[in-house]
Amino acid sequence: MITSVHNKCIKETVALLAKKKERDRRGLFVVEGGKMFGEAPTEQITRVYLAQSAEKEMYAQYGDKLSGLSCEMVADEVFARMSDTVTPQGILCLVRQQHYNIEEILQNHNGKQALFIILEEIQDPGNLGTIFRTAEAAGADCVIMSSRTADIYNPKTIRSTMGAVYRVPFLYVENLSSIIKMLQEQGISVYAAHLGAQNFYDTYDYQKSTAFLIGNEANGLREETADCADALVGIPMEGRVESLNAAVASSILLYEAYRQRRNG
Amino acid sequence: MITSVHNKCIKETVALLAKKKERDRRGLFVVEGGKMFGEAPTEQITRVYLAQSAEKEMYAQYGDKLSGLSCEMVADEVFARMSDTVTPQGILCLVRQQHYNIEEILQNHNGKQALFIILEEIQDPGNLGTIFRTAEAAGADCVIMSSRTADIYNPKTIRSTMGAVYRVPFLYVENLSSIIKMLQEQGISVYAAHLGAQNFYDTYDYQKSTAFLIGNEANGLREETADCADALVGIPMEGRVESLNAAVASSILLYEAYRQRRNG
Repeated sequence: MITSVHNKCIKETVALLAKKKERDRRGLFVVEGGKMFGEAPTEQITRVYLAQSAEKEMYAQYGDKLSGLSCEMVADEVFARMSDTVTPQGILCLVRQQHYNIEEILQNHNGKQALFIILEEIQDPGNLGTIFRTAEAAGADCVIMSSRTADIYNPKTIRSTMGAVYRVPFLYVENLSSIIKMLQEQGISVYAAHLGAQNFYDTYDYQKSTAFLIGNEANGLREETADCADALVGIPMEGRVESLNAAVASSILLYEAYRQRRNG
Repeated sequence: MITSVHNKCIKETVALLAKKKERDRRGLFVVEGGKMFGEAPTEQITRVYLAQSAEKEMYAQYGDKLSGLSCEMVADEVFARMSDTVTPQGILCLVRQQHYNIEEILQNHNGKQALFIILEEIQDPGNLGTIFRTAEAAGADCVIMSSRTADIYNPKTIRSTMGAVYRVPFLYVENLSSIIKMLQEQGISVYAAHLGAQNFYDTYDYQKSTAFLIGNEANGLREETADCADALVGIPMEGRVESLNAAVASSILLYEAYRQRRNG
């Protein structure tokens, strides 16, 4: 059992929680809590840490899954120090990062109506996670992010995906313009959410292959990115609201596409 | 100029930021940042604090509004201590709380299609603020909250409303069942977002007066509250998603009502 906060494993976990650089260097990220452990693909879990007082409960609930994994017991007070949450649930695991490539994703959706969401510099980890969660729910095939978007492996983001991070393919790209062009060449229409749009989002047909483009929370899309889109789409707003939250805007667009597809 | 963190005004402001009880006792709340100050109704602002280094910029931008208000200069290092944000913008004001009553709200909408949103025990301040922001954008008339919902005057909530808190009437009520009955007697149909619903949200007509009922993030609606609704409505979900974020679910419903009303 690990009883010292100076233990190498504890220091490694704390570094993985705090630093994107460390996560990328090791190709790992940290997942906390019973539910998120339960949803993590077993073959990607490299190690599990259990708080001493939670051992019984966790084995009762996740015994089958735990039995094939490398588990380490941790004294409660040490576990609290390695946790990112205020009230740790007593289980934490290290998970291998997933890497997807665009060719594979496009191939998988050959012949089907695609639904993509493209994010430019979304900064808030909670917004990013919520967008993943909603994207899975609306049946999206992939989330594409500019390289300056928040890190999907940030612990706050992981939590707010509610497991969608394990299931929705995603990509970080340096250059959004060239990936937009690639999608368009595959017959996918790209609609940019934009305050300067002339038409509202619900005047377009999203039953064909569709990608939505969403910009930064404070500044919206860069002009050169918006220029690549097939059309700018506006979300109408009453009152004196100047813009919507980025996760809300994404949800309204994704669910309009999903609504049209369900209702034919 | 206030130069000590022990100054009575500083202590009062810190208490107003941290404690709902203190906010309610004094009937005040704290608003931070230029934009949120700019949007606050002048007649509700009781005092303004300016960080010394921000004075010039704030007078350049908000001179007209500031001229009629009681302003106090604060040394930068003291201002940082009274601020709830990591990078304070150097302006903070105390604002009088607003109180609305249901009779007035219902009277104002006599003859018009009403759009209400009713929240039961929403806990996350950011979710609550985002719901206010989206409610204003979708043209909602009022947000009704159970008394165990997060405090709208929490500084995190205020920030995420982006000003909607000043413009959307709201109510906290002890008993949701009786307010639901009151709405129904006024001809408003109440639709509860519910995982056990038999029909999807987009099969109903929201062009008539409508109220949406949204439950707690983790547990959804209490059974006795859901039972009061005219209908349970489901939001379809692909993949392995078990539920949506509460602000996202609210947005999908509010924007479906708004879409139907715009498109007739």
